[in-house]
Amino acid sequence: MKPAAVVLLSGGLDSTTVLAEAQAAGFAPHALSFRYGQRHGVELAAAARVARAAGVPHRVVTVDLSSLGGSALTDETIAVPKDRSDTMMEQGIPVTYVPARNTVFLSIALAWAETLQCGDIFVGVNALDYSGYPDCRPAFIEAFEKLAQVATADGVEGRVRYRIHAPLMQLSKAQIILRGRALGVDYGVTHSCYDPVGELACGRCDSCLLRRKGFVEAGVEDPTRYV
Amino acid sequence: MKPAAVVLLSGGLDSTTVLAEAQAAGFAPHALSFRYGQRHGVELAAAARVARAAGVPHRVVTVDLSSLGGSALTDETIAVPKDRSDTMMEQGIPVTYVPARNTVFLSIALAWAETLQCGDIFVGVNALDYSGYPDCRPAFIEAFEKLAQVATADGVEGRVRYRIHAPLMQLSKAQIILRGRALGVDYGVTHSCYDPVGELACGRCDSCLLRRKGFVEAGVEDPTRYV
Repeated sequence: MKPAAVVLLSGGLDSTTVLAEAQAAGFAPHALSFRYGQRHGVELAAAARVARAAGVPHRVVTVDLSSLGGSALTDETIAVPKDRSDTMMEQGIPVTYVPARNTVFLSIALAWAETLQCGDIFVGVNALDYSGYPDCRPAFIEAFEKLAQVATADGVEGRVRYRIHAPLMQLSKAQIILRGRALGVDYGVTHSCYDPVGELACGRCDSCLLRRKGFVEAGVEDPTRYV
Repeated sequence: MKPAAVVLLSGGLDSTTVLAEAQAAGFAPHALSFRYGQRHGVELAAAARVARAAGVPHRVVTVDLSSLGGSALTDETIAVPKDRSDTMMEQGIPVTYVPARNTVFLSIALAWAETLQCGDIFVGVNALDYSGYPDCRPAFIEAFEKLAQVATADGVEGRVRYRIHAPLMQLSKAQIILRGRALGVDYGVTHSCYDPVGELACGRCDSCLLRRKGFVEAGVEDPTRYV
């Protein structure tokens, strides 16, 4: 039997690629998504499609981060930035940063991992394209891995050795797309846009811009449907 | 103006004492409770009473840990242990342990702290009475503190130094009660029972037994209403 692993799945390009990586690495992935008050709730439908296509179990956990505010992704009164240049994206932490989001998501992944009695958790963080997000960096992943070991019964009692896998950490968007294609990922079912109109991507938020550029640089046709 | 702090408030004896400690230490506490699928949801009413009595803002965040299972506190099909002796309680991790619960709770507290731009988080964990819970130990608190510093924009950019305060860590239940009394806490409004009948405490779960014993050892009249 393949060992279980928890895979954080937003339904976007990165996490969908990570799901394929986890399968290719011989794990039986359990996909985990969050209803956290994101304005782009349509990504949950994409996550369900991706999990179904991959044939893996999928849970959606509600965690109401929008009640705490502080981000354009969860607060309708803060506008999602559009048409930013690469230089602008590289300057500081954008308003689409959700305070402590990856800490919260990994914590809940850890809870599920302990219930499943597995120690492998996959997350699609990336230090290159999202250089502005503190919780997408190697130091964060290492600190969480250390925490996990002392945070759980399985860890403290030595039954499980936790590993937070971040296979995309040092890849460019183009490299991620090429890797995913090699693994058979259909990016047509994924959703990355922060500010969609229905199921259509806006094409102008940071996430859309990075994704678009990635397909161009990879020389792969972009299956995204834009407004 | 007093500096803000986030205080995890379950509505039980320990966290209510911690709230009073945070106030006594000169902070302006922001109380945070969780609707996490606990069978003793009545504790949320107690948390609201405690916050009102202390005159502090109070938020309740939904995080659906019950959908992940694995604990008697969130799964109605697992019985809450009753009438266990001290020796039994000291042996291993009980079924009332909720996988990674304090990691999840502290993560969401961290999200709120970053929104408030404060670095002080108070939590009522205790290494003596809950020796079976891995996420109530000093090593866990230290690891979380380290994680917080690299997990947030405020931390990475050096605006905030995170401190996880666990003032009850080395106190017995009787010492906690005496400390709370000195700070003017009214334990009559708190709720500790894991398996209440309406608003009445069962008197027989681990939490009730520890609380009862604490009042006896402190020589303080127990205001709890038991079935």
